[in-house]
Amino acid sequence: MRRISIFLVATLLNAAAFAESAPVPYPTGYRAWHHVKSMVINPGHGLYDAFGGIHHLYANPAAIRGYQTGKWPDGAVIVFDLLDAKSAENTVTEGARKVVGVMHRDAKKYAATGGWGYEGFKGDSRTERAVAGNAATACHACHIAQKDVGFVFSKMRQ
Amino acid sequence: MRRISIFLVATLLNAAAFAESAPVPYPTGYRAWHHVKSMVINPGHGLYDAFGGIHHLYANPAAIRGYQTGKWPDGAVIVFDLLDAKSAENTVTEGARKVVGVMHRDAKKYAATGGWGYEGFKGDSRTERAVAGNAATACHACHIAQKDVGFVFSKMRQ
Repeated sequence: MRRISIFLVATLLNAAAFAESAPVPYPTGYRAWHHVKSMVINPGHGLYDAFGGIHHLYANPAAIRGYQTGKWPDGAVIVFDLLDAKSAENTVTEGARKVVGVMHRDAKKYAATGGWGYEGFKGDSRTERAVAGNAATACHACHIAQKDVGFVFSKMRQ
Repeated sequence: MRRISIFLVATLLNAAAFAESAPVPYPTGYRAWHHVKSMVINPGHGLYDAFGGIHHLYANPAAIRGYQTGKWPDGAVIVFDLLDAKSAENTVTEGARKVVGVMHRDAKKYAATGGWGYEGFKGDSRTERAVAGNAATACHACHIAQKDVGFVFSKMRQ
């Protein structure tokens, strides 16, 4: 009995450690993924401080299936690529990268946030993390409004 | 001698017919191609009437090599996907498609316009052509300014 209890405790501790040590990986190669859609968020918008600029969404093959079916398989990754929006001479052009936002699907690893791991990589860095342990409040708290469609806001543009 | 002349004339007529009958094909599947960059052109810009809205550029694999090397192999295709830009509540979002612009590389077929065939497909149509036989004046006349980089204006965003 004692051996079983020790085993259980060890398993639970491992599970907790695993959850904590499951940082969302940088989405290597996402610039070659499918371009889902784009949008500009200008000063005056409620989300300007967090997401001001021009952003593009990219989907890996598993995420494309998610957009098409509404069911998001483990391994689906969506990237929110946020750049400065430079307004000049009646144009808006792309400036420096502000953040690479990531939603990474793994129903078990990220069960606490609807099966999605959230992260933001600052600027062009692949290691500086903007979300880290705050995904529940910094990301999922808003995405939960989209529960009926798998917590994803964007839709695939034709 | 007479037989040779007839042969030559026939060959030249065939060549002329070939050039005229080499319409730029619709770039099937381009939405899955590599997203090069994007830009918004607003009212007041000199190109607004022609290109106003939000546009995205896409490159097929041969065109990606062109962006990387400055040398554009036959078969390279660049798409200029122009959508309405809808401004509301401090955002700019994508509206209906206005035109699918195409540059299609074939040094022989399109020798008269720098080796590029130009076309525009209206809205979501794959058959309604906006350029047709007017590529030299409607397209290449401006692109010729970019002769040193293979007549292409855009650069691949990282």
